[in-house]
Amino acid sequence: MVVINPLRFLELMAAQSAIGATPEGGLNRPTSSDDELRVRRWFADQAQQAGLDFRTDGAGNQSATLLSPDPAAKTLLIGSHLDSVPNGGRFDGALGVVVGLEVLLALKESRILLPFHVEVVNFTDEEGTLRGLLGSAAMTGRLTPADLATVRGGADALQAGLARLGLSTESVLAAVRDFSSVLGYLEVHIEQGTRLERANLNIGVVTGIVGVRSYWLTFTGQAAHAGTMPMADRHDALWGASNLIQDARACVMHDFQPGVVNFGSIHAEPGAFNIVPAQVRMALEFRHGDAATLEAMQIALFALIHQNAEKYGLSSIIDSAGLVPPALMSEPLVALIEQAAADCDLTHTRLMSFAGHDAQSLANVTPSVMFFVPSINGISHNPAEDTSPEDCMHAAEVMLRAVLRLADG
Amino acid sequence: MVVINPLRFLELMAAQSAIGATPEGGLNRPTSSDDELRVRRWFADQAQQAGLDFRTDGAGNQSATLLSPDPAAKTLLIGSHLDSVPNGGRFDGALGVVVGLEVLLALKESRILLPFHVEVVNFTDEEGTLRGLLGSAAMTGRLTPADLATVRGGADALQAGLARLGLSTESVLAAVRDFSSVLGYLEVHIEQGTRLERANLNIGVVTGIVGVRSYWLTFTGQAAHAGTMPMADRHDALWGASNLIQDARACVMHDFQPGVVNFGSIHAEPGAFNIVPAQVRMALEFRHGDAATLEAMQIALFALIHQNAEKYGLSSIIDSAGLVPPALMSEPLVALIEQAAADCDLTHTRLMSFAGHDAQSLANVTPSVMFFVPSINGISHNPAEDTSPEDCMHAAEVMLRAVLRLADG
Repeated sequence: MVVINPLRFLELMAAQSAIGATPEGGLNRPTSSDDELRVRRWFADQAQQAGLDFRTDGAGNQSATLLSPDPAAKTLLIGSHLDSVPNGGRFDGALGVVVGLEVLLALKESRILLPFHVEVVNFTDEEGTLRGLLGSAAMTGRLTPADLATVRGGADALQAGLARLGLSTESVLAAVRDFSSVLGYLEVHIEQGTRLERANLNIGVVTGIVGVRSYWLTFTGQAAHAGTMPMADRHDALWGASNLIQDARACVMHDFQPGVVNFGSIHAEPGAFNIVPAQVRMALEFRHGDAATLEAMQIALFALIHQNAEKYGLSSIIDSAGLVPPALMSEPLVALIEQAAADCDLTHTRLMSFAGHDAQSLANVTPSVMFFVPSINGISHNPAEDTSPEDCMHAAEVMLRAVLRLADG
Repeated sequence: MVVINPLRFLELMAAQSAIGATPEGGLNRPTSSDDELRVRRWFADQAQQAGLDFRTDGAGNQSATLLSPDPAAKTLLIGSHLDSVPNGGRFDGALGVVVGLEVLLALKESRILLPFHVEVVNFTDEEGTLRGLLGSAAMTGRLTPADLATVRGGADALQAGLARLGLSTESVLAAVRDFSSVLGYLEVHIEQGTRLERANLNIGVVTGIVGVRSYWLTFTGQAAHAGTMPMADRHDALWGASNLIQDARACVMHDFQPGVVNFGSIHAEPGAFNIVPAQVRMALEFRHGDAATLEAMQIALFALIHQNAEKYGLSSIIDSAGLVPPALMSEPLVALIEQAAADCDLTHTRLMSFAGHDAQSLANVTPSVMFFVPSINGISHNPAEDTSPEDCMHAAEVMLRAVLRLADG
């Protein structure tokens, strides 16, 4: 019988957590930092010590593979990432890679003969220190030279970061993989939200990863003396902006649940106590897992922008700042994870992922699924990010059951 | 008969407008700039060429006086300012000084014997390049060393500016005048608003200058992932801020007309597309001419701040950023200006000044009144600031009639 070794697994989690550990109990392991280079060497050492096949591709993606005895076998991918946001937590990404490694160790130890290779991938820079989802986008052929020329942190920082990893933009762009030999992709991650904890459930099976649309929105009215200009005669850009924020909130909460909208940044010009704001610039972002609903949200939100511009005598400009389409998970793999959870006597529910993950790259080229385990208080991207040892074990147990169910065909 | 000389008066207006003129037709004459020093010499030259008594006090206030034959006579003050905001207009302040000068020239020419001295004052730095109302506050004993140590632009800029004017903080603080020999204070100014133009009236007689209260307001909620944190669970500081802006607008427009409220500046932290705003800082300012109503506005607005903090799960901090009490004009002088306007066959109304003026310093120590003439389209602090030659003439005619009525006792 194949089983997870709790001691070994939790020791692997502790070992990775020590690399880049911060005094507050978190992790500081942004891509290409000294500690991120150290955790890469640690992962390679673990794979090689265990006698797994180990490779790194031109995008820096590290693969540890338990080979099937059948040389013509296809490959099942399990993945996540070992990089972290600056001053982040010990579980975001790392849990998925360590679960994959423990599953390989358990399978290898059992001497079971699998009809497919099982490959655990540590994807490069999921968090976007250089460019978000860099490794998974490169592997799945979704990166263009233009993408790399326009990264948020600047092309120079990207070049320097890649050089520290022994890579180049050329090697990254050449890292496209042939997925015809890939069976599918499985990923486990912490939820980074409160839905499982609130519902007291063990496992959240992801049916889709939300699409994200972001815009810079500018309202322009007229600057005026904040004393002498009567309120009824003002073209106050902040009146339009503030009413839009309220309208958008009500619209999304009422009509587009579980979609979300955020105004993350706001700035008023000229910005003095005694001058009516002439111009307000805001960062608008909204998310939904269903492509048609995401489009409907955009139509509704843009209508509110225009209504508020008209109501307050303003002009409006909407500039796109990025667009990520929703990624649908594979229904057979969603059902597989539900069965695996049931096998382990764990409660489960279906939900949408409201954060981006490497699975959204993989879903374009191979059947893919993700599942979540609870985050304590929903806290993430924070040193206080935490998941109980029991929930970490559930992650590993369900992943192992899913692989064994696939092997049983 | 004493009359305004239209040609001389409009030529004086043109002459002052040429000093610091901008290509757009405006004026750039901030206190202690080269052009502001030039307009001071111009004013002194005009006074001396006309045989008027000329003096400058320790705060740089320039006085041109037509002396009464009675050496024991008291003094009637007429004043305004020749400095401008950066890239401002040709009328804000300068009209009042030039009207005063023309009134003195007309009175002198007529050889009328007045029972009081008439002194026209160009007050230093009404606009606040160094410190708002510097000259009038100094003359009326309303400046403390602490005020001068905490000026908005910094004490070094104040020292440097005063040095260019041949002054020092010591000389400014020593410029307090004895007002027991002063009869009262008259000031004419452009309206900087649209009330007269809209009502098609010639003269606005100011009954009071609004008090202004300003605050830095901080709402603090909790940063969160803008995807994974459900909207119902967010403590979004910008939700509280935006709803407060709408509530405050409705409250003041409904309950406190003609009072005004402005949120001139807003900033959200951490300020990223994908992070729910943890903190929002806003500049809040409100104005009313009646002290009790201003207090009631504050109570109402602070209640809205607390209500919105509670509604959105935020904490709030309110820091005072300045407090100017309302200044009441003298009722007998208000009536005097109304009679003078009627003498000139001009229509008039009573109104409040929503901007600060030197008269609010003078009102503390001597009976004071202001009156307004229309601003075209209400535009001010802008190169497009304009007032018709007819309205400028009305300003001079009403001022002259007011002085003559006072002389007639």
